[in-house]
Amino acid sequence: MLRRGFQAAVILGHHGTLPGATHLLPRFNPASAFGSSMESLVSRFCQEMKKSKNYALPNASWGPDMLSLYHEFLEKTKTNGWVRVPSFRSNRDHIQGFKLPLDLSANSDKSDWRLFTRCIEREGQGYEYVIFFQPSEKKSICLFQPGPYLEGVPGFVHGGSLAALIDETFSKTAYLSGEGLLTVNFNIRFKNLIPLGSLAVLNVNVEKIEDQKMYLSCVTQSRDQQTVYAKASGTFLQMHLEEDSSRQ
Amino acid sequence: MLRRGFQAAVILGHHGTLPGATHLLPRFNPASAFGSSMESLVSRFCQEMKKSKNYALPNASWGPDMLSLYHEFLEKTKTNGWVRVPSFRSNRDHIQGFKLPLDLSANSDKSDWRLFTRCIEREGQGYEYVIFFQPSEKKSICLFQPGPYLEGVPGFVHGGSLAALIDETFSKTAYLSGEGLLTVNFNIRFKNLIPLGSLAVLNVNVEKIEDQKMYLSCVTQSRDQQTVYAKASGTFLQMHLEEDSSRQ
Repeated sequence: MLRRGFQAAVILGHHGTLPGATHLLPRFNPASAFGSSMESLVSRFCQEMKKSKNYALPNASWGPDMLSLYHEFLEKTKTNGWVRVPSFRSNRDHIQGFKLPLDLSANSDKSDWRLFTRCIEREGQGYEYVIFFQPSEKKSICLFQPGPYLEGVPGFVHGGSLAALIDETFSKTAYLSGEGLLTVNFNIRFKNLIPLGSLAVLNVNVEKIEDQKMYLSCVTQSRDQQTVYAKASGTFLQMHLEEDSSRQ
Repeated sequence: MLRRGFQAAVILGHHGTLPGATHLLPRFNPASAFGSSMESLVSRFCQEMKKSKNYALPNASWGPDMLSLYHEFLEKTKTNGWVRVPSFRSNRDHIQGFKLPLDLSANSDKSDWRLFTRCIEREGQGYEYVIFFQPSEKKSICLFQPGPYLEGVPGFVHGGSLAALIDETFSKTAYLSGEGLLTVNFNIRFKNLIPLGSLAVLNVNVEKIEDQKMYLSCVTQSRDQQTVYAKASGTFLQMHLEEDSSRQ
């Protein structure tokens, strides 16, 4: 999984120019390295990696609520165009063969990088989640079963851990819906605490795409939709992945 | 660490009344169980727990930048009124002997709960941070050295992991400054990506306290203040901890 040639954007170039900003955002080029169709982008980004564990599959810690809703959405992948988004230990697995557009190389001298929302290895203790994406409607559902390592107020989910998972679901949805890659801003209003071990459902929608920016919303609620846990919105910057000619 | 009798707020009662809300927020009682002085609140909340590991102390993974700034602030605790906030594996350690004010009991049938920002046990891999609080100015500094498990864009900190740590620093600052306990809303604007393994400094201020709410701001930047990584704001709800008569 250790690779050279990764390059990353470090200046988001929004809300005015920052003092000391030396790396300006390039103009968005709508001609993607994936080709122009979302179908091709989705299939490329969501392909299974034989060598990488897919964390979006059920494990023994998933409760009955999580499992039954998972199977409901799995059925929808067969007939209604939904896609189960695979989830790897690092975003490096999703973008194998590509590099990010700007000109700062990431330090790659360690091999044990992990996507933050997959940082806890022990099943059931941290983030258990799976994202389903609906390309034609540009929306996602994330099924989230928080474990006891995500605690804030005793017995309940830390607000920051929910915010992080919404940001992660936004980021996958933004990329698949139109190559939105980097969070520009994020806002969340908390309505109710989520009990650890329960099931929360994140409903994410792309609201609009305008001038290189994507605007997303999320309502997090209980499965029966009777309890709203949080409402969030986020803005992402579009930037496409290019072929990595330095790949080794 | 396993205790009975924890009770937690589940309705934050902000931005209007929620449909289906059954647990209304009690009026804030300014007479705290700690007594009225902030000094007493801080010393009670920040006391060392002999049986609990304090994660706010240096370990072998801390780099030279993190260590030198830590010692700078440690000096300030001796002369300038700063307080090093201890950090335990769970908020249960901070509030031993107290319960949260509302009437829902948290499920306490497991012993291995962890504060989200202390969820990664391996030194240097996840969150390395320490918070210093200045009571008279109602402000905090959090020194943050992100490890490789906090990744988003390859080589850089996941926006959600920074958001979570800011929320956590807000929450400790809000409690110590005036018993602000629950996040009502949170907003973050990302300016630059933080390289994994570097040092970021979170500068948190209480902007105002009004009508049971506390308003906080945070600027996250490099140690030399030349690079702003993110700006954030948050609102917290005040609610004091009461003696827990059911303690066993």
